[in-house]
Amino acid sequence: MHVHVNAATSVDGKLSSRRREQVKISGDDDFARVDEIRAASDAVLVGVGTVLADDPHLTLDDAALISERESQGDSPHPARVVADSRARTPTDARILDDAATTYVLVSEAAPKDRRTALENIGAEVVIAGTDSVPAARQAQLGDVAGDERVSLSAAFDALESHGIDRVMVEGGGELIFSLFDADLVDELTLYVGSMIIGGRDAPTLADGDGFVEDFPRLSLQGVERVDDGVLLTYDC
Amino acid sequence: MHVHVNAATSVDGKLSSRRREQVKISGDDDFARVDEIRAASDAVLVGVGTVLADDPHLTLDDAALISERESQGDSPHPARVVADSRARTPTDARILDDAATTYVLVSEAAPKDRRTALENIGAEVVIAGTDSVPAARQAQLGDVAGDERVSLSAAFDALESHGIDRVMVEGGGELIFSLFDADLVDELTLYVGSMIIGGRDAPTLADGDGFVEDFPRLSLQGVERVDDGVLLTYDC
Repeated sequence: MHVHVNAATSVDGKLSSRRREQVKISGDDDFARVDEIRAASDAVLVGVGTVLADDPHLTLDDAALISERESQGDSPHPARVVADSRARTPTDARILDDAATTYVLVSEAAPKDRRTALENIGAEVVIAGTDSVPAARQAQLGDVAGDERVSLSAAFDALESHGIDRVMVEGGGELIFSLFDADLVDELTLYVGSMIIGGRDAPTLADGDGFVEDFPRLSLQGVERVDDGVLLTYDC
Repeated sequence: MHVHVNAATSVDGKLSSRRREQVKISGDDDFARVDEIRAASDAVLVGVGTVLADDPHLTLDDAALISERESQGDSPHPARVVADSRARTPTDARILDDAATTYVLVSEAAPKDRRTALENIGAEVVIAGTDSVPAARQAQLGDVAGDERVSLSAAFDALESHGIDRVMVEGGGELIFSLFDADLVDELTLYVGSMIIGGRDAPTLADGDGFVEDFPRLSLQGVERVDDGVLLTYDC
C-alpha cells in the first residue's frame, strides 16, 4: 500500500481556522494538481472529523480525468474511505452517495446500530481491530480510549484485499497524526499558502497527541513555487 | 520600526512539542543565519511564555559578530526585550543578566511589586498602555482580559525613543500572533525542518485566538534549501 498525504496549510501550519470552516489556502494550479493525484489513486481517505466539518464529496472535478480513468477500465472516481473509529459518519453525508464506493473503517467498539445504518445506506463497513496504545497515551486520550481506535494498519490490509494499492489522504490533522504515528505514510505533498491563520485551537497538519521524542524525519524531495505559495514534497 | 519575525518550525507548523521542550529543528547553517540576523538587530524580542519555557539568553554566539558590532560603536549584543503584559519574568531569568540591556514591556495592569522587582534587578520596564480589544475577543481571552494586555504598538514607539529601529522577534506563537494581529510585522523568515512534531496542544508559529476572516496575506520573496529543510522568506 502506497500512502500519499496531500494537504494545504497556512504558513503557520493550519488546515483551517479555529471555527473549522474551510479557508481558501491554495489557488487554481494547486487545485488541478490535487485532482490529478486523486485521479491516480485507488482511494481517497479522510478522517471522520473532516466529514463532520466539511461534508466533502471527494470525487473528481475534471471530466477529462474521469474519462481517462474509464478508458483504463477503472471506476470513474476513486473509492472513498473514512477513518471513523466509532462509526459517527452521518448517513446523509455526501461521501456516502452512490457516485463511488465508500469504505468506512471502524473499530470493534463501534456501536452495532451505527454500523448497520451505514451498511443499509450502501457503505462498505470495515471492522479493523484496535491499535495497541501505550498506557501513558491512553490516559491522555480521554473518551477516545485506546481500545476504541480503529487499527489503521489492519484496515489498510483489508483495503488491499479489495484491490486498493494507492491511497491519497486528504486530512484532517487527527488522521494524519495517527498515520505518522503508525509509520504508514510514504509520501507527503504540502502546499504552503502565503497567509497566516493563527489560533492555538485551529487544526494543524498533524494534531493528535503529538510526538515528544523520536520525531519522524522526512526527506525533502522537491520545492516548487505554485500559485503564490510553495509546494513541498517529502519522502517519509 | 522594522519588525522581523524569525522562527523554525516542523513541517506541521510546530515550534516545539506539547511539552514545550526545545526541539532541534534546524542545523548549523540555519543557526549561523539566525546569529547574523540577531547581530544586525538593535533588539531581540520574545514573549514571556518563551522566557518561562526556555529561559533563553538571547546574546550572540559568534565572537566575530560581536567584534563587528563593537567596531561600529554598537553594544556587543543587541538589547533584549520581553513582551510581558503582567510582569511575570522571573528575576533570575538569564535574559535579565548584565550581558545586555533588557526591556520588559508590561501593561498598566502589571502588579507594581513585580515591576519594582524587575527594575531593582536592572531591567528597563516599559509601561505601555493597552491595545483595544473587541468585546467578542475579550470574552475568549479568559484570564488575560483585553485591558491587561500590553499595547505592542505603543511599546514599540517607546523602544524607538531608545534608538531601537530594527527588532528581531524569536517567538513564541502567542507573541507572533499578537504582532500579526496588530499589523506590526514587516518580514518573516521561516525555516521549515523536515520533521513532524504533531500535537493539537503543541505551540505553533502563530497561536493566540487566531483569525477567522481577513487572514493576513504575505508575499513569498524567497525559497532556499538550508540544511535538510527549506527557508521561506516573506514580506508582510
